[in-house]
Amino acid sequence: MKQYLLGIDFGTLSVRALLLDAETGAETVAEYVYPHGVMDRALPSGKALPPRYALQHPRDYLDGLRQTVGEVLSKVGAPPQAVAGICMDFTSCTVVPMTREGTPLCMLEKYENEPHAYVKLWKHHGAIPHAERITAIAKERGEAWLSSYGGTVSSEWLLPKIVEILDEAPDVYRDTAYFAEAGDWLSFLLTGKRTAGASFAGLKAFWNADYGFPSNDFFKAVDERLDGIVGDKICDTVLPTGSCVGTLTAEGAALIGLCEGIPLAAPIVDGMAPLPALSATEEKELTITVGTSSVHLVHAKEPKEIDGLCGYVKHAVVQGLYTFEAGQTGVGDMFSWFVHNCVPRAYEEAAEREGLSIHAYLRKKAAALEIGESGLIALDWFNGNRSVLKDEALSGLILGLTLNTKPEEIYRALIEATAFGTRAIVDRIEENEIVINGVCAAGGIAQKDPMMMQIYADVLNKSIRVVQTSQSAARGSAILASVAAGLFQNVSTAATHFASPESARYLPIPKNVAAYQSLYQEYIRLYNYFGNGGNDVMKKI
Amino acid sequence: MKQYLLGIDFGTLSVRALLLDAETGAETVAEYVYPHGVMDRALPSGKALPPRYALQHPRDYLDGLRQTVGEVLSKVGAPPQAVAGICMDFTSCTVVPMTREGTPLCMLEKYENEPHAYVKLWKHHGAIPHAERITAIAKERGEAWLSSYGGTVSSEWLLPKIVEILDEAPDVYRDTAYFAEAGDWLSFLLTGKRTAGASFAGLKAFWNADYGFPSNDFFKAVDERLDGIVGDKICDTVLPTGSCVGTLTAEGAALIGLCEGIPLAAPIVDGMAPLPALSATEEKELTITVGTSSVHLVHAKEPKEIDGLCGYVKHAVVQGLYTFEAGQTGVGDMFSWFVHNCVPRAYEEAAEREGLSIHAYLRKKAAALEIGESGLIALDWFNGNRSVLKDEALSGLILGLTLNTKPEEIYRALIEATAFGTRAIVDRIEENEIVINGVCAAGGIAQKDPMMMQIYADVLNKSIRVVQTSQSAARGSAILASVAAGLFQNVSTAATHFASPESARYLPIPKNVAAYQSLYQEYIRLYNYFGNGGNDVMKKI
Repeated sequence: MKQYLLGIDFGTLSVRALLLDAETGAETVAEYVYPHGVMDRALPSGKALPPRYALQHPRDYLDGLRQTVGEVLSKVGAPPQAVAGICMDFTSCTVVPMTREGTPLCMLEKYENEPHAYVKLWKHHGAIPHAERITAIAKERGEAWLSSYGGTVSSEWLLPKIVEILDEAPDVYRDTAYFAEAGDWLSFLLTGKRTAGASFAGLKAFWNADYGFPSNDFFKAVDERLDGIVGDKICDTVLPTGSCVGTLTAEGAALIGLCEGIPLAAPIVDGMAPLPALSATEEKELTITVGTSSVHLVHAKEPKEIDGLCGYVKHAVVQGLYTFEAGQTGVGDMFSWFVHNCVPRAYEEAAEREGLSIHAYLRKKAAALEIGESGLIALDWFNGNRSVLKDEALSGLILGLTLNTKPEEIYRALIEATAFGTRAIVDRIEENEIVINGVCAAGGIAQKDPMMMQIYADVLNKSIRVVQTSQSAARGSAILASVAAGLFQNVSTAATHFASPESARYLPIPKNVAAYQSLYQEYIRLYNYFGNGGNDVMKKI
Repeated sequence: MKQYLLGIDFGTLSVRALLLDAETGAETVAEYVYPHGVMDRALPSGKALPPRYALQHPRDYLDGLRQTVGEVLSKVGAPPQAVAGICMDFTSCTVVPMTREGTPLCMLEKYENEPHAYVKLWKHHGAIPHAERITAIAKERGEAWLSSYGGTVSSEWLLPKIVEILDEAPDVYRDTAYFAEAGDWLSFLLTGKRTAGASFAGLKAFWNADYGFPSNDFFKAVDERLDGIVGDKICDTVLPTGSCVGTLTAEGAALIGLCEGIPLAAPIVDGMAPLPALSATEEKELTITVGTSSVHLVHAKEPKEIDGLCGYVKHAVVQGLYTFEAGQTGVGDMFSWFVHNCVPRAYEEAAEREGLSIHAYLRKKAAALEIGESGLIALDWFNGNRSVLKDEALSGLILGLTLNTKPEEIYRALIEATAFGTRAIVDRIEENEIVINGVCAAGGIAQKDPMMMQIYADVLNKSIRVVQTSQSAARGSAILASVAAGLFQNVSTAATHFASPESARYLPIPKNVAAYQSLYQEYIRLYNYFGNGGNDVMKKI
């Protein structure tokens, strides 16, 4: 019987299941869009939510899981027992408060009208004051782990989200047996085993492969009621990526629509899941997944404390290697904002006449511009700055506007700003003696926008390879499933077996590199002025 | 027989003639749009123009003069001899190179394909390097007049435009008998008298009522070939505003379609012409004419050297008073740029559904915002900064952009930026002990946008009166004509007789004043950083 591997990618708005032919690497995909989407204005009952909230309904994950898995199996005509292994990747830090049996609290009648009982999505920003307080306490106590998280605790991470619940909905806190990342919650439902994936615990929960979790004293210093939380409400059984959580129980098999006994790999953060599909499992290459936001990942043999990165995690992708992560919070999101808010009717009509998407139309016009021709420079902080400034209160800036400025000039300036923001990240990594020889770019934008990729190659002065994948996270998860299923010895071997072809390669063009070098000097001067204390106007207004 | 006064307002794109009933003040208007418009890309022959050029065709002025005058007379059924006096106002510094007979060089066959033989419109910026060189020479020589022009010579003024011709088209310079402002050129054609209006000479040609023109040594220091230019190619017979140039000759009467002997008042800069129509002929009130750009005028009894203003002129509007001028180069122009380049289709369609102009639709949405709600702050330098930084190379900035920023928020931030720019001008004037108790606002935008006027009142913390006029420049000119015709003793008396009703008054609202005070502190910090040497990025990129 033919063998298949199942990778399931839970994103912000939908879930994609990918069935990978274990021999040929051929893939079949199904998608399910969450009916509740991102709840940022109201609960299903109509109850209004405060600003900065972003919740999800766990029912969407469960329905999507069964439906997409059933669909891919039926598309290829494979029986459930043909699935040799499963791996899920999930947005993170996306937190589910649940009962001892694994029932999300929001699915109890008692709590269906309580916002804090719902899943707090990664981009829920209700815990900003809590994160600030936790940072201050960790600094005051000289917590050693803080430096490996870039020196600041983000409101998007696990502990701030838990403390938000503790402070604002103590009943929910009390009735929550376990707080878990949604990926770990689903693993628990499917296998009956409570574990935590290393990438989740390492990136968002202060866990370190070499030192474990922070001390109980730290948690007590944050709040006495957190006494004993690790090992109790927070799971401390952390599994390296590629390892096996367990096999499907009868209940788990019923949930997913498969059969008992299929091995499940430890889940992985969605931003890291593409690496095996991109064959990006070695040192000295930076992988950038360019999406609504961008994630930057690089592996190294040794841990380093790098100020301004999101942190590093051992075993997060490849056992034994430390994977460092950085991020930009507004990339595709910012381009979408632009086309929805700043593009005149004449452009939309021209794009329609030419049969182009508005993005493609703007790219075509922007690609015809010389570097520096517009006289514009922008700061790409429309959604704050994750790396290396770690400041959610920063905002965007466009400078150099004149009465002759055209929309495509602003569009290009925004693209260039994201390239400059990436350069600031690369510079910070290289200053810390982690070598980067080249870049692997993934994500839809990397494949759709050759102009942007050439700009990145020129701004970074590094060659960029783009790999041809459509569902790189789901495919990467399926490759991880093959390791957990014992088909391959390790992630690198599996990645080599399933390697996707390179679809494009961009080499830096020396005269462009020089032109961007001088523009970057101006960018970084503005970056430091507004981002590093020269002028705090963005935080004050 | 009923008596009428004729005011003729030559603007950038059209000319308006206004026939004013000398007794009732009733007005009749006709307009003529220049067929050649602003030639900034090519000559009529198709010959391409360099960047920053802005030329006009004098044929348009002549055709417009005859046509509009004929039209207003025929509308009221008045015979030519019912016109008791004429006054023209004109854009400035708009320079005509002409023969000894007054024929513009571009109307000679020899020069019809020579850009430098055409009228250089006020916003022609081909002379930027020449202006810089003239400033440097004036500084080096310690020219006393320079400080009364704010310390910098603008490329828009008379001498840089002449030197541009001298350097780049020496034949045109040689064949030019006279260089004159277009208003003075038309006066010459109509009366046969070569004179210069005080407002033109004072604002744009370094003439000072108390000291005359700069010395011949200065002109020779700029270029030996300028030796003796004042009194030769530049007319040195300067007439105060409201005085009489002479009467129509037979040739002049034929040109304008009237009869011989009608007195013609000295022409006036279009930006100052509205003052008599607004009854703004006294001290202690700042008049702001809000148009594509804005002009700020205030009278005082004494001259003062105020750094950053455009200068002052004695007799420019009222004999004996010094009129100080400042300006903002991008106001209505900037809002137009915004609606043409940055407003999405959905907004245009919604505006159409509601039967509103896109400006009115944006104003409606922007008016619903609280002060500071958007978190945006802008610098209004889309067309450079005329006052008080005097730097054409500055550019616009928008700061505070997020993924939630809406078009109406940017629109309001741009309006607020123009108010803050006005505040910077008012502060500079008041620091120099010229008292401003209130503001008179004129121009189309002042009457159409109550939100903007309230913002100005709150930002300036001064009450604003808006006068109901549709053609304030042409009406002001007609009032000046009444003085030249001897119907009134002076401009103030005439202005009182023809006073237009107040259409609105805006009082500062204390809580808004406080809110804007703190936003203004942030604006002025950015203003100084980017405009006063903190970061010259706008000039470098």
